[in-house]
Amino acid sequence: MESQDTPDQPSLHLRIIFDEARFLGPGKIALLEGIAATGSIAAAGREMGMSYKRAWDLVTAMNAMFAAPLVASARGGAGGGGARLTDTGAQVVALYRRFHAQSLLAGAGELAQLTALLRDIAGQK
Amino acid sequence: MESQDTPDQPSLHLRIIFDEARFLGPGKIALLEGIAATGSIAAAGREMGMSYKRAWDLVTAMNAMFAAPLVASARGGAGGGGARLTDTGAQVVALYRRFHAQSLLAGAGELAQLTALLRDIAGQK
Repeated sequence: MESQDTPDQPSLHLRIIFDEARFLGPGKIALLEGIAATGSIAAAGREMGMSYKRAWDLVTAMNAMFAAPLVASARGGAGGGGARLTDTGAQVVALYRRFHAQSLLAGAGELAQLTALLRDIAGQK
Repeated sequence: MESQDTPDQPSLHLRIIFDEARFLGPGKIALLEGIAATGSIAAAGREMGMSYKRAWDLVTAMNAMFAAPLVASARGGAGGGGARLTDTGAQVVALYRRFHAQSLLAGAGELAQLTALLRDIAGQK
């Protein structure tokens, strides 16, 4: 990260809360994207510093949240199985990412004003 | 909360990350709003189930984040002091709330599509 007077562009940690038990945030979405990229739940979790169990638990929770599973997997087997996003999984990732991008765009003015109010850290010489 | 087939309207937990050490999320904003409403850091924290120390630590952190303090307080004293939002504090709350509302609006289509993909919990009879 470059040192500069004010942060370039704030980032957004966005969690959608559907009800008391169901939410979708950047961690779950990143895991889904990792599964799409690696073809493996374990590998995707590993890249995020997540235990095998934690990655599986998240996938199980996400598959139970939606009417159709987001991840299709063949557990175990010689090659350790494999995993891929279902059509619904790909759709959920795309919708979340679009929401995230549109939030940043819609709030660009407010974000810029908030950033302008920050203390100038690099200026404290 | 009513029992129904699909959640009415998802809510949004939105955290703005300015840099590695500075972020602003719903907890800090709710505390600021509580201070504005109660005139007291301790009372605002108590309403959120927060310890006195935790509420003060959050206020100290927020005051250090921005170029001007967000909360002006008179610590201690006979009446236990009092606290109020500064102009900057009120501005930060308003900007965050506007950002939050605009995100929901901008992403309403995606939110509706995500909600439509959820498992119908109430339908599991």
